[in-house]
Amino acid sequence: MTHRIAILGASGYTGAELVRLIATHPGMEIVALSAERKAGMTMAEVFPHLRHLDLPRLVKISQIDMGQVDLCFCALPHATSQEVIRDLPRDLKIVDLSADFRLRDPGEYERWYGKPHAAPELQAEAVYGLTEFYREEIRAARLVAGTGCNAATGQYALRPLISAGVIDLDEIVIDLKTGVSGAGRSLRENLLHAELSEGFHPYAAGGTHRHLAEFDQEFSALAGREVRVQFTPHLMPANRGILATVYLRGEAGEVHEVLKSAYGAEPFIEVLPFGALPSTRHVRGSNFVHVGVVGDRIPGRCLVVVALDNLTKGSSGQALQNANLMLGEEETAGLMLAPVFP
Amino acid sequence: MTHRIAILGASGYTGAELVRLIATHPGMEIVALSAERKAGMTMAEVFPHLRHLDLPRLVKISQIDMGQVDLCFCALPHATSQEVIRDLPRDLKIVDLSADFRLRDPGEYERWYGKPHAAPELQAEAVYGLTEFYREEIRAARLVAGTGCNAATGQYALRPLISAGVIDLDEIVIDLKTGVSGAGRSLRENLLHAELSEGFHPYAAGGTHRHLAEFDQEFSALAGREVRVQFTPHLMPANRGILATVYLRGEAGEVHEVLKSAYGAEPFIEVLPFGALPSTRHVRGSNFVHVGVVGDRIPGRCLVVVALDNLTKGSSGQALQNANLMLGEEETAGLMLAPVFP
Amino acid sequence: MTHRIAILGASGYTGAELVRLIATHPGMEIVALSAERKAGMTMAEVFPHLRHLDLPRLVKISQIDMGQVDLCFCALPHATSQEVIRDLPRDLKIVDLSADFRLRDPGEYERWYGKPHAAPELQAEAVYGLTEFYREEIRAARLVAGTGCNAATGQYALRPLISAGVIDLDEIVIDLKTGVSGAGRSLRENLLHAELSEGFHPYAAGGTHRHLAEFDQEFSALAGREVRVQFTPHLMPANRGILATVYLRGEAGEVHEVLKSAYGAEPFIEVLPFGALPSTRHVRGSNFVHVGVVGDRIPGRCLVVVALDNLTKGSSGQALQNANLMLGEEETAGLMLAPVFP
Amino acid sequence: MTHRIAILGASGYTGAELVRLIATHPGMEIVALSAERKAGMTMAEVFPHLRHLDLPRLVKISQIDMGQVDLCFCALPHATSQEVIRDLPRDLKIVDLSADFRLRDPGEYERWYGKPHAAPELQAEAVYGLTEFYREEIRAARLVAGTGCNAATGQYALRPLISAGVIDLDEIVIDLKTGVSGAGRSLRENLLHAELSEGFHPYAAGGTHRHLAEFDQEFSALAGREVRVQFTPHLMPANRGILATVYLRGEAGEVHEVLKSAYGAEPFIEVLPFGALPSTRHVRGSNFVHVGVVGDRIPGRCLVVVALDNLTKGSSGQALQNANLMLGEEETAGLMLAPVFP
Repeated sequence: MTHRIAILGASGYTGAELVRLIATHPGMEIVALSAERKAGMTMAEVFPHLRHLDLPRLVKISQIDMGQVDLCFCALPHATSQEVIRDLPRDLKIVDLSADFRLRDPGEYERWYGKPHAAPELQAEAVYGLTEFYREEIRAARLVAGTGCNAATGQYALRPLISAGVIDLDEIVIDLKTGVSGAGRSLRENLLHAELSEGFHPYAAGGTHRHLAEFDQEFSALAGREVRVQFTPHLMPANRGILATVYLRGEAGEVHEVLKSAYGAEPFIEVLPFGALPSTRHVRGSNFVHVGVVGDRIPGRCLVVVALDNLTKGSSGQALQNANLMLGEEETAGLMLAPVFP
Repeated sequence: MTHRIAILGASGYTGAELVRLIATHPGMEIVALSAERKAGMTMAEVFPHLRHLDLPRLVKISQIDMGQVDLCFCALPHATSQEVIRDLPRDLKIVDLSADFRLRDPGEYERWYGKPHAAPELQAEAVYGLTEFYREEIRAARLVAGTGCNAATGQYALRPLISAGVIDLDEIVIDLKTGVSGAGRSLRENLLHAELSEGFHPYAAGGTHRHLAEFDQEFSALAGREVRVQFTPHLMPANRGILATVYLRGEAGEVHEVLKSAYGAEPFIEVLPFGALPSTRHVRGSNFVHVGVVGDRIPGRCLVVVALDNLTKGSSGQALQNANLMLGEEETAGLMLAPVFP
Repeated sequence: MTHRIAILGASGYTGAELVRLIATHPGMEIVALSAERKAGMTMAEVFPHLRHLDLPRLVKISQIDMGQVDLCFCALPHATSQEVIRDLPRDLKIVDLSADFRLRDPGEYERWYGKPHAAPELQAEAVYGLTEFYREEIRAARLVAGTGCNAATGQYALRPLISAGVIDLDEIVIDLKTGVSGAGRSLRENLLHAELSEGFHPYAAGGTHRHLAEFDQEFSALAGREVRVQFTPHLMPANRGILATVYLRGEAGEVHEVLKSAYGAEPFIEVLPFGALPSTRHVRGSNFVHVGVVGDRIPGRCLVVVALDNLTKGSSGQALQNANLMLGEEETAGLMLAPVFP
Repeated sequence: MTHRIAILGASGYTGAELVRLIATHPGMEIVALSAERKAGMTMAEVFPHLRHLDLPRLVKISQIDMGQVDLCFCALPHATSQEVIRDLPRDLKIVDLSADFRLRDPGEYERWYGKPHAAPELQAEAVYGLTEFYREEIRAARLVAGTGCNAATGQYALRPLISAGVIDLDEIVIDLKTGVSGAGRSLRENLLHAELSEGFHPYAAGGTHRHLAEFDQEFSALAGREVRVQFTPHLMPANRGILATVYLRGEAGEVHEVLKSAYGAEPFIEVLPFGALPSTRHVRGSNFVHVGVVGDRIPGRCLVVVALDNLTKGSSGQALQNANLMLGEEETAGLMLAPVFP
């Protein structure tokens, strides 16, 4: 049986990435693509790399007959998403890629995003979409909230270690480097090629990046106490990829063992041999996550380094993996593409 | 039935690209991978982006039992390839990715490559691997010679036009731009990141590039007379992609019609609407070819612009497409991956 | 004596490049910087790389006392420039970097730019700013029109050859590759890093690029007959640099001799040894031009390849060179910075 | 008076950078350039971007008459440098850019570099070349040891803070990102464009990078006790630039004040306004250092971020600044070039 898929916000990078992945999925058919401002255009005009595919023309959301849709991906901007989803049929399966349903506490949402949530009742219903840690809840969910791409990366380093109690919860530093596609296709001066290539800089430093809200929520829940990490994102001159260098207090060997054990059966997470370190270019364009562990010369300290592709495992790949679970498909369907290197 | 595949020279970029593509091929299994100097290593050590795959360890060619192999890809350096293939079983199906069997005339081979061919009898047997134009010969072939990546790009622009007699054969300029992966993983100063990024330059200009031998052979055979094109390759600061800007004398509308008609049924070649121009980034990582046509303000002159990925359609993707034909597989099997953008 | 300099439009790349160059100029002092929308800001806020310099704060043009200015650089957008310059004092020395005063014929201006010129009387007064060919006129000029960066590059290849009568005027192809900074700091989707890096494409092909108007005007005037070249610009994934590959009919040796002779005394133009080819990375950040000549295997055909930095010799460096002449300064003052490589 | 300069090892990037900087230096003349394997070639052949300069031909070191040289820059590989310098005249002023004379303790040298020093008596004589902190010693020195580029970056963040006693010496993490030119022009697979662009990875993690020896030596001497930092270098896909993100325990406001006060009179070090963060692209090609400070949401923790150009302030610019002091030249001569952006 082929599931009928709609993608709302198909003119952005995460929308296009969903189309790319679903193109080789054996059990899904794209029946609707929306883009409010580009309604009427073909995907070939908006994304010429998808020219070879037979896709429906872009329409406005209001033009889609949701009764003919089995699952809807929402790749809309933050804040817009909650208003759109609020008005969708209440029995429609939805995977949201925005930040709108990641936080369970309406107060926390308002604090980090600066205004009240438009659909607080759905916040409670939404399941947090970090597949490996919410698999059963996602399988049963109607509404899944995709995680922040940076938030996913940090959590792959830390969740098993917090659960196992092998690190000091008060001494966690996440120094993270992200590619530019994470910022989307928006017209901002600092995203221009001339501004961004050939250089490197931090941004939203000092505890101000909104993905901290996810770290706070998830790590505190796991630990059963408040956990506050330090987190500094940097923008790197590459289109895809996130690399998190996580500084920890804990025994490196034990940390490596815990991660190997936690991820041993996971289809997409590769824990490297002890001492080996990952690179974003080795997961590029794929749903895989590479995790490395190395000890420091200072006893009792170690590093965990995690690399993934922000558009795939950090966003659209994760969304498809969750949709597979929600629809009873093979979890890995459409997602076993090898990374593209060089 | 699953075909058993060997890849000789698996530690180079075209070898790795073959592994990437075959990874999702439903009818092929990789049973042997060779790399003389890296024999004993795992592919994960040589190419960490393939870490998730269950692959045989690298061995020397002499260690492979060719009796257990249905088809062998040779991704070895030029000159080495002819010596290795000369000694392989004469009933083994082979797709060679080197330059060694592209030229049918031993004299031409010696003239362009500077020494006599080691297996001239196989030169005669080999079929030129430009799939769309040698499809039936390839289906029946035992030994197929992969084309030069630049040579393929220029031919996609020109072959139908030469056949149709709609252009002036004495006035053809191919200004070509290629990504750096075409030069392979070799240690040369001019391939270093610091030497190559942030800049652009021509090389092998003025009629000295070896892929001209393929243009001469193929275009002259098609035209039934000697054809000599001008060809200037340039190295661009990107890893993948070739773009050829071809200057022609002919009516632009007619040129567009001939190309549309020639490629209308081809699964991998997309002729863009008249006036639209391709970009290498829209075929990146895929087996697709984009072809654009535009007229010039000077009457009777026009441009054909062709973009493809040198490692995929220009090399390993072409090789797999040919292997599919030789093995009776679906021609597109393993090759329908959408381009990776951004 | 120190000349007092104003730069109008200092928040764009050519404005910033002027500041960078003038920073080490012994005979100039920047007394005013304008930027309408960013008036009130410091240059350190707009261009942090100029933070170490003691510069006036950005103001609106109307706030500048032009009586205190010896020479004014106009780095404003096309169309805006003509309106601003029309209203400046008629005895103020001006170097304009826009397209507004490049064409002498109001009809041609209207044809290529789509509307009548706002200051046609100044069109007649303006001197075309290609320094090496208009040196004496520039020395005496009040208003100098900076050339198009692509137009400059093509002219460095062709002017001496047209003057010497050694090439076929009806068979000229300019295949040009330009870096992204030539498009300025404007917010356009196709200038985003994610859209532009890792790829290559042509644009404004087939005789539609506005710099053709400069080629037409200048080459026809030189030849004493109408000359129409073919010209295809491409956008390359690098910030700075233009490389023009020019296909010609003429004897390569003679072409090389003519260029060597024409440029032998020029401080910024380097004609490479016969057969050597330039690269944009070897002129990056400098006012130098590298020119190479190579013959083709087809007798009577050859290539001239020219590389320069679009922001320096193609724009702000050229402007400063012209200002030096207009003010009686050493022509090379502030411009002998070596290229930055790697 | 013009000082006569020799550069040993002129065929590498730091040698070329010295030539670039000295090109506009009013008080220096390059009288000899060495490159053992490229002896006999011109600099234009080895570095075409220096083509416009009138430079001596490359020779072997043994061919240079050191009696005609006032100061010698040694841009030779590590280990080679100590053997060459040992045999130079003992009254020749020398600025060494290698690692050979950075460590004062022969035992530490052997521990980090794996073999005994060839000229331990010169180790004691050499002055550590971090100009701002050894200015008077350098002025009087005969032999100055250029610092590691990463080591310089980290020290600009930390030295004033250690001296002022405002941070916790046991809780220092330096997460550092460096451009590829720091690795020199050596032929290594991981420096190829295809291996390095479009990705990001750490290396020498966990306390193994040799620049740690400099941190240990300098910070411990400053503090009067053993100081051991955590240090993780990463390779970024850019040619130039180092950015260090330094995690500290201390009051952010106090940290900012101490740095502002320490660097207030320095010509090349810019402390940004509190909360502003630097970018490598804003110091590119220059001798400037940008320093930013921001507090963390966790009280008592803060970040210092430092950006500089590894080839300029991190290496050849630092060397020239030191040479200026040793020769009685203006300290900033030849070094006031503004950064090149974009």
